[in-house]
Amino acid sequence: MGENSFGRIFKITSFGESHGEIIGIIIDGVPAGLKIDREFIQKELDKRKPGQSEVTTFRKELDELKVLSGVFDKRTTGAPLCMIIENKDFDSSKYKKFKKYLRPSHIDYSILKRYGGFADYRGSGRFSGRITAGFVMAGAIAKQILAQHNISIFAYTKSIGNIEDKYKYEIEVIEKLVEKREKSVVRCINKDISAQMINLIEKTKDQKDSIGGIIKCIVKGFPAGIGGPVFDSLESTISHAIFSIPAVKGIEFGAGFQAAKMKGSEHNDPWILKDGKIKTAKNDSGGIIGGISIGMPIEFQVAIKPTASIGKRQKTVDIENMDNVEFELTGRHDPCIVPRAIVIVEAMTAVTLLDHLLCQGKIPDVVQSET
Amino acid sequence: MGENSFGRIFKITSFGESHGEIIGIIIDGVPAGLKIDREFIQKELDKRKPGQSEVTTFRKELDELKVLSGVFDKRTTGAPLCMIIENKDFDSSKYKKFKKYLRPSHIDYSILKRYGGFADYRGSGRFSGRITAGFVMAGAIAKQILAQHNISIFAYTKSIGNIEDKYKYEIEVIEKLVEKREKSVVRCINKDISAQMINLIEKTKDQKDSIGGIIKCIVKGFPAGIGGPVFDSLESTISHAIFSIPAVKGIEFGAGFQAAKMKGSEHNDPWILKDGKIKTAKNDSGGIIGGISIGMPIEFQVAIKPTASIGKRQKTVDIENMDNVEFELTGRHDPCIVPRAIVIVEAMTAVTLLDHLLCQGKIPDVVQSET
Amino acid sequence: MGENSFGRIFKITSFGESHGEIIGIIIDGVPAGLKIDREFIQKELDKRKPGQSEVTTFRKELDELKVLSGVFDKRTTGAPLCMIIENKDFDSSKYKKFKKYLRPSHIDYSILKRYGGFADYRGSGRFSGRITAGFVMAGAIAKQILAQHNISIFAYTKSIGNIEDKYKYEIEVIEKLVEKREKSVVRCINKDISAQMINLIEKTKDQKDSIGGIIKCIVKGFPAGIGGPVFDSLESTISHAIFSIPAVKGIEFGAGFQAAKMKGSEHNDPWILKDGKIKTAKNDSGGIIGGISIGMPIEFQVAIKPTASIGKRQKTVDIENMDNVEFELTGRHDPCIVPRAIVIVEAMTAVTLLDHLLCQGKIPDVVQSET
Amino acid sequence: MGENSFGRIFKITSFGESHGEIIGIIIDGVPAGLKIDREFIQKELDKRKPGQSEVTTFRKELDELKVLSGVFDKRTTGAPLCMIIENKDFDSSKYKKFKKYLRPSHIDYSILKRYGGFADYRGSGRFSGRITAGFVMAGAIAKQILAQHNISIFAYTKSIGNIEDKYKYEIEVIEKLVEKREKSVVRCINKDISAQMINLIEKTKDQKDSIGGIIKCIVKGFPAGIGGPVFDSLESTISHAIFSIPAVKGIEFGAGFQAAKMKGSEHNDPWILKDGKIKTAKNDSGGIIGGISIGMPIEFQVAIKPTASIGKRQKTVDIENMDNVEFELTGRHDPCIVPRAIVIVEAMTAVTLLDHLLCQGKIPDVVQSET
Repeated sequence: MGENSFGRIFKITSFGESHGEIIGIIIDGVPAGLKIDREFIQKELDKRKPGQSEVTTFRKELDELKVLSGVFDKRTTGAPLCMIIENKDFDSSKYKKFKKYLRPSHIDYSILKRYGGFADYRGSGRFSGRITAGFVMAGAIAKQILAQHNISIFAYTKSIGNIEDKYKYEIEVIEKLVEKREKSVVRCINKDISAQMINLIEKTKDQKDSIGGIIKCIVKGFPAGIGGPVFDSLESTISHAIFSIPAVKGIEFGAGFQAAKMKGSEHNDPWILKDGKIKTAKNDSGGIIGGISIGMPIEFQVAIKPTASIGKRQKTVDIENMDNVEFELTGRHDPCIVPRAIVIVEAMTAVTLLDHLLCQGKIPDVVQSET
Repeated sequence: MGENSFGRIFKITSFGESHGEIIGIIIDGVPAGLKIDREFIQKELDKRKPGQSEVTTFRKELDELKVLSGVFDKRTTGAPLCMIIENKDFDSSKYKKFKKYLRPSHIDYSILKRYGGFADYRGSGRFSGRITAGFVMAGAIAKQILAQHNISIFAYTKSIGNIEDKYKYEIEVIEKLVEKREKSVVRCINKDISAQMINLIEKTKDQKDSIGGIIKCIVKGFPAGIGGPVFDSLESTISHAIFSIPAVKGIEFGAGFQAAKMKGSEHNDPWILKDGKIKTAKNDSGGIIGGISIGMPIEFQVAIKPTASIGKRQKTVDIENMDNVEFELTGRHDPCIVPRAIVIVEAMTAVTLLDHLLCQGKIPDVVQSET
Repeated sequence: MGENSFGRIFKITSFGESHGEIIGIIIDGVPAGLKIDREFIQKELDKRKPGQSEVTTFRKELDELKVLSGVFDKRTTGAPLCMIIENKDFDSSKYKKFKKYLRPSHIDYSILKRYGGFADYRGSGRFSGRITAGFVMAGAIAKQILAQHNISIFAYTKSIGNIEDKYKYEIEVIEKLVEKREKSVVRCINKDISAQMINLIEKTKDQKDSIGGIIKCIVKGFPAGIGGPVFDSLESTISHAIFSIPAVKGIEFGAGFQAAKMKGSEHNDPWILKDGKIKTAKNDSGGIIGGISIGMPIEFQVAIKPTASIGKRQKTVDIENMDNVEFELTGRHDPCIVPRAIVIVEAMTAVTLLDHLLCQGKIPDVVQSET
Repeated sequence: MGENSFGRIFKITSFGESHGEIIGIIIDGVPAGLKIDREFIQKELDKRKPGQSEVTTFRKELDELKVLSGVFDKRTTGAPLCMIIENKDFDSSKYKKFKKYLRPSHIDYSILKRYGGFADYRGSGRFSGRITAGFVMAGAIAKQILAQHNISIFAYTKSIGNIEDKYKYEIEVIEKLVEKREKSVVRCINKDISAQMINLIEKTKDQKDSIGGIIKCIVKGFPAGIGGPVFDSLESTISHAIFSIPAVKGIEFGAGFQAAKMKGSEHNDPWILKDGKIKTAKNDSGGIIGGISIGMPIEFQVAIKPTASIGKRQKTVDIENMDNVEFELTGRHDPCIVPRAIVIVEAMTAVTLLDHLLCQGKIPDVVQSET
């Protein structure tokens, strides 16, 4: 581990900042022989990139994948895989070295105390959501390998503000769900609820405000017996990974916080025998018992806070004159980052689960037969 | 990291199982020269131990602290500190090697798939809540060091089932809160709510059932500037630590899942100047912005699921005869583990925060002046 | 990693001190289902224990193996395996808190500077060769697993002082070599050279002096393709492990320091085809090229310095009176630790190589068929 | 740790390959506020780059430093520092996918077994000495920080083949030594011995052969009390780092292998009081006792094997036709890599020692007063 590394065998190292030259990721421990699907990685990047629709930020970036190392003849070599995108559409001129106003719920004070005034503050620097483009690239590689073992990861927008999609989707029809989700600019599966969400975001945007939401993530096909009881519990490692995404403020597995209100007789998932296979009748455990997968879908929900950067008038401290003041923030801000965060949650989940499989020796370090 | 190790500089390694000889913890990286307060560690252990009250399990254990290494002349030496408790009151006779019934939401299937039938299943073995006694011992050491730097960690029972204490306590009066909490067998601060909780647990127990709850944890005095934006975010490491506690199914920082419903203008914590100090007017960020502490109290909530072991009749699979059946579990079970989990949540929080301080070089590796 | 932990998947944590209660080791990541061979572990411990012969120290310890966790029904469970021996025959009365004299090439000054006077100095505390009993226990487990995959590790005394056994032994007949070695109290294979070594040690002992030596270690049956080019090179990890043994001051692989004098045409090992198998005609590479095993025996040599504790009159500093003085050390000291270090070198090699195999997924995390 | 990462707090990740686009290094954990001295880093790179003199390879590379992340306003920000050089002068056309001949003591067989034919073999790919340019860049940063704490690292060519410089240099006059060393194309301090070495290398080159050598490294100003007795011993971590440099086959600290022939009374370094300071009369311990620094110069020697690539006719296996054959290698090869390896040994030493200081909290995570 480390400040910017995650994983034990499949290990990613994140680098780059919002207004620096590049955003990058290094993956150490990629099995050799994997045919890199550049088109797929690019599509994943596109799901995260700014300016996708009216409901996201206007920053225009191509976010074009470049592979700097670790690939030869279109396949991974077993050497560290370095992937980057370049930063192009940024205007740092408006950022001044001395920013008088501490933006509420923003990183200004954090970085002052952590890095003593030396952090690159332009566009939030290292704290920008933009660094997650690296996570997405690593996630795309992980997803590709997981897919070869019939494991799929699927996330979608469950709620924006008070508008919630309460339906329990069947993960069996994941392709259909993806298709429906990608038709919605807010990445909500249900068409009507999607329209309501878009409406809410637009209204919020008009008010120079922002709004939070909840992402649900489901993993299909993950084998039973992966994880552990203590510090390698699936909940421990997945939550570690998910909280590295900016704006995440909560995570719950299965029934989650609802479980705190339940009785054992309600919460317990009865085992059943179905077509000769052992399953549970429901999945309040979220597919994880004792920190270990049980072969049911892994399910969790992630709380995303509203973007801190808003245009509305706010109270704060002027640290130049040491005074309480009011101010207004200008610039282009994302009124709701949930739709763009979907692919990032999927990516970090993929990275984490693949690492577990590799640590337990369930996936070989050289790809065997794939063409 | 690793399956049973946590931390980078202050690094704990957990070992032992429920019906083995001992439960233990090793701490590597304890600063040398710390005067071990055995009485304090024992008191912390007592807060976790079984049989404290009518509302917990009846297993009778002394849980007496033994220090096997790392201490000389009553002080830490800088060598690994090994602390154990012994297991005494257990009767493994009733556990048979072949357990026909997969207990719902219990580890039977997990360990079968993970360890191929070789795990020590007696009393849940390595998955028992009992292993957290090790966490508590490590936490006691961490708390002692943190206290020398005026950092206190305080958790309490916020809810049991639907009974919730919604009051926002002032962390400034932490000693009073601890006093009040310790007067309640459910570790709830409010006397009346405490009585309701006890009543609910007893009723649940009579129904051979169990119940979940929510623990709130607040850290006082933690300095600003600790943590980081990516994999070392305070949320990442704290959640990693907390999910290593059995029965935890959710965690949220500050406003948490509520933040997902809020607008930026509601959620943002305005900075204010108060007595020459920079603070925030409220604390929906939970004391953490950009993964870094801001000097406000760190606040988070933990969802504890109801104990899986209940006496009520349940449906499950008989894996000997491969059939769907109903069965009843016998034995002594904890109807609600929330009260005993309070000290464990505090312990893992202490361990995690101390490690952050050591990694950033904020605490010296030899205790300086303490007598 | 960490001060007292080593390994990534098969991870050992060492604890205990010379005059504390115990010496122990925890292994995290032992495959489940391994039938523990207590007799074998004890035999390995016996090879390291003091008082084996006239040429070693007189401290009398039984060094009896105790397993505290991780084993159930005589097999590993996948939980951390904790093994200890107890310290019994020690007399700490002669050690005074303030030791006036800094013993030459001894740890007195090191621990003063590192732990500020708080280290347990009795019998060298954490720096005692006695802590390697933990390494030996871990090594015995690793050897057992490696043996199931036909990998054997063999070390022997190559030289004591100027007496050297220059013969190149055939690792194919390893059982015979072990047999011959174990007949020699100095663990030298050749009977005549062994006699000379014993003679030298006894003479040295009479002079109240000590003597160093070289250990050669050979690994048979290790598969090709394990290791890596950079920080996971076999030389990097093996040397890391070996230098954790007190008194080691050098390591060389294959031709080692001799290679520095050679030309490429001399040093290069020609590949040859023999009975349809690819081998090298000689093994100056020590079985490792590019940090990766090539299927030839892994060979390396370890330099052991003479024991620092000698009875001879020595010059040093009296740090109480801050003066240059002469003094004589009393007590029982090992005139040559090489014979007892053989099994320790084997142990750390076994631990390191097994970890490599597990990291590359070459050994399953549950033992398959062994009875 | 990991295959391509090293360090705990100051953590480097290496990537890139010989004939890929770039060679790079990421440093995580660089203190914020360090003024980057690009000129110094470039000078260090120049000491390693090919084509410096007649006695090195002819590959012409500018090896121009590019900083991709982690620097803002010329100072480190606390974010990961990514530095690269580009690969320009390479001609991969002569490398064919199927190479019939296994080059003796070369990586052909290693990578076949490790990466199943998927490794980038061009110019040795990931195994090329060229990847150490990344080590050099990281080392330059580490040296800069160490210099602020008056710690200097100095290595030089001690021997080439049988020509050895036996003089014991005074590390106090390090600037003079560096000056002398840099006047010699083989980086030998003594002018006459340098001439002999050059002569030997040229003769060897004419014979289409290569030659090995020994590098001595000395660290001045390193404080006492850094390191540890077990897996964090200075010897363990330094050797781990040094063996990650291609062609290293041995390392010894202080008297090293010579110590194996010595008696305790000869090897022990007497403590002496000199000008009120505690020192040792000589330094056979190499500045490290019990794995911990004692304030004396840290001294070690590294054995470099002769380059495997030679033009001379060699025996090997034709793996296409599975036959024993003879062959001749063409191309430009370094007859002796010792002179270029000097700066690499210094770099990895700097990286390792700085990490130790940071782990023990001896260097702050924000640079304090430097201008």
